[in-house]
Amino acid sequence: MGDRTTIYDIAKRLNITAATVSRALSNNSKISKKTRELVFKTAEEMNYRQNKLALALKSGKSNNVGVIVPRIDRNIFSAVIRGIEENLHSEGYQVIICQSHDDEKLEIENIDALINAQVDGIIMSLTLETSEKNKAIKRIVKKGIPLIFFDRKKDIEGVSTVTINDFEGGYKATQHLIDQGCKEIAHLAGDFAIEIYEDRYKGYREALSDNGIEFREEFLIHTSSKVEDGQKATRALLKLKERPDAIFSASDFVALGAIQELRAQGIKIPQDFCVVGFSNEPFTKFMELSMSTIDQSPRDMGKIAANVFLEQVTNNDNVKIQKKVVLAPELLIRDSSSRLPIK
Amino acid sequence: MGDRTTIYDIAKRLNITAATVSRALSNNSKISKKTRELVFKTAEEMNYRQNKLALALKSGKSNNVGVIVPRIDRNIFSAVIRGIEENLHSEGYQVIICQSHDDEKLEIENIDALINAQVDGIIMSLTLETSEKNKAIKRIVKKGIPLIFFDRKKDIEGVSTVTINDFEGGYKATQHLIDQGCKEIAHLAGDFAIEIYEDRYKGYREALSDNGIEFREEFLIHTSSKVEDGQKATRALLKLKERPDAIFSASDFVALGAIQELRAQGIKIPQDFCVVGFSNEPFTKFMELSMSTIDQSPRDMGKIAANVFLEQVTNNDNVKIQKKVVLAPELLIRDSSSRLPIK
Repeated sequence: MGDRTTIYDIAKRLNITAATVSRALSNNSKISKKTRELVFKTAEEMNYRQNKLALALKSGKSNNVGVIVPRIDRNIFSAVIRGIEENLHSEGYQVIICQSHDDEKLEIENIDALINAQVDGIIMSLTLETSEKNKAIKRIVKKGIPLIFFDRKKDIEGVSTVTINDFEGGYKATQHLIDQGCKEIAHLAGDFAIEIYEDRYKGYREALSDNGIEFREEFLIHTSSKVEDGQKATRALLKLKERPDAIFSASDFVALGAIQELRAQGIKIPQDFCVVGFSNEPFTKFMELSMSTIDQSPRDMGKIAANVFLEQVTNNDNVKIQKKVVLAPELLIRDSSSRLPIK
Repeated sequence: MGDRTTIYDIAKRLNITAATVSRALSNNSKISKKTRELVFKTAEEMNYRQNKLALALKSGKSNNVGVIVPRIDRNIFSAVIRGIEENLHSEGYQVIICQSHDDEKLEIENIDALINAQVDGIIMSLTLETSEKNKAIKRIVKKGIPLIFFDRKKDIEGVSTVTINDFEGGYKATQHLIDQGCKEIAHLAGDFAIEIYEDRYKGYREALSDNGIEFREEFLIHTSSKVEDGQKATRALLKLKERPDAIFSASDFVALGAIQELRAQGIKIPQDFCVVGFSNEPFTKFMELSMSTIDQSPRDMGKIAANVFLEQVTNNDNVKIQKKVVLAPELLIRDSSSRLPIK
């Protein structure tokens, strides 16, 4: 930490000006890629450590990137953050994280805190409440700070998005249940105000329809993403005159509640009832009766979101980049829905 | 967001100067507590919203507090952060989080990022590698930024700490296993470079000794906190000529691996083998055979850490506060060690 290499030392070694070194180190595209790489390599060899605050003051860059998620203790979010960090740390960026707790007011305060902390970009997954009209989000765009939504997104002019194909996830989960011989498939859905939940539901509907199975209104129950909600919804489903024989849940936690309730009522899984969740939370694998679920490749989602940020921030021209990346979901077939041998 | 109340409006209403309002809002102790409270209340009534950046520039305060944890996807850390947020949000602070991934170099970069982001304080849990000599930590102290360690701490001059009594946790877990009739108790331990793991082990040793049970070297295995490590260590224990009949693990994840391995080998829990973990990770409750564990009251730990910060930051006098708060752990007796009816 106590090293004293300066940009002047690097400039001398390479026989270029200190200004060029400085620009190269802040990844200015006016400097050729070759020179930038040479400067970075030399800086590393000489153990050069940027005075980041000075750099931030000079270049307006802090080398911090802000990430806002509803909560850090859900696998989808912590794994996306891991992916973001992996691709940003190697580029000299630090990642600072805020939680919105699904509260739009708190989310606005998160945004203000990050803007005040001079972040170079913001990568976020929205609260259930966030509207397209959110002024804090507009403010980020107006300030020209690169902004990327992942998972829970809204379509807003100037904002890039990275999501998985949730429709396909819902379709795959439902088709799998039908393949296992299930005919009366209920769906525990999230809040349709959020696109991903509506898309999962649409996939479910389409799979039913493609297989000539009629959709039954009473088999659709909206829940939060809490375990207890899964228990409650399942109790309600089991009280119906015509009971379902399978549940596709838009949340692993809700699916866990469903499995608990089914077992409490002595219903055999997967023989008499199949369950598929969504998200591939780590506990789904640890359960003695492991849970089938949809993997969202969150780490890849984070890496791609980081790359979209890097593209935007290194793009010094006045070209506006707005990207829309959609990843394919993966169905993981486990005990809770495995009546047939896995192919 | 579009409100336009200024400090001048508040000053006019209260018939005091704008400077007094400004000082009161930045919690300057030169203003009487009564006046500060009155100003806060009036500001709230009038829907006053501080321009935080301007405030930060004027007062040197950003109203951001940084939190550094090894990783966000462990219950102890996410729950502590929740507690910190609960007590800081209400005081107008935002919490920004960094992950060190148990890498001291990354931790130093986290610290630099937070200092550059002008945080008013840092609350952190150290990496396994962090030494007392860490210069970045010294830098925080030197700059007079309030610094609080929780859970994984080192004793450093000027740094407050909030921990649970890990010795007592280890003692309680071991005593409980002895009470269940276990006589050959193995311990899966963390890295003793970190005090909390050494303390848990010392509690285990003391409980054995107090009950006249001899400690056996081969019953102590060091592991990381991964599930697979618990499986591996348990396999090793079960190969011993004299096998243990219980495991006290310093980590829930490792205990989970132990339970998986015991079941794979057809050993009945708790009849033939008892297991107790540490941390009360949410999955321990969800397992069909729920896991006994030690709860660390992480939410309270976070709240107390936040309060220690608030005490330090509102203390404008030159008195140095260094606090050491130790919470009591709670033993949660569940299926994995319940041979006897719970009292």
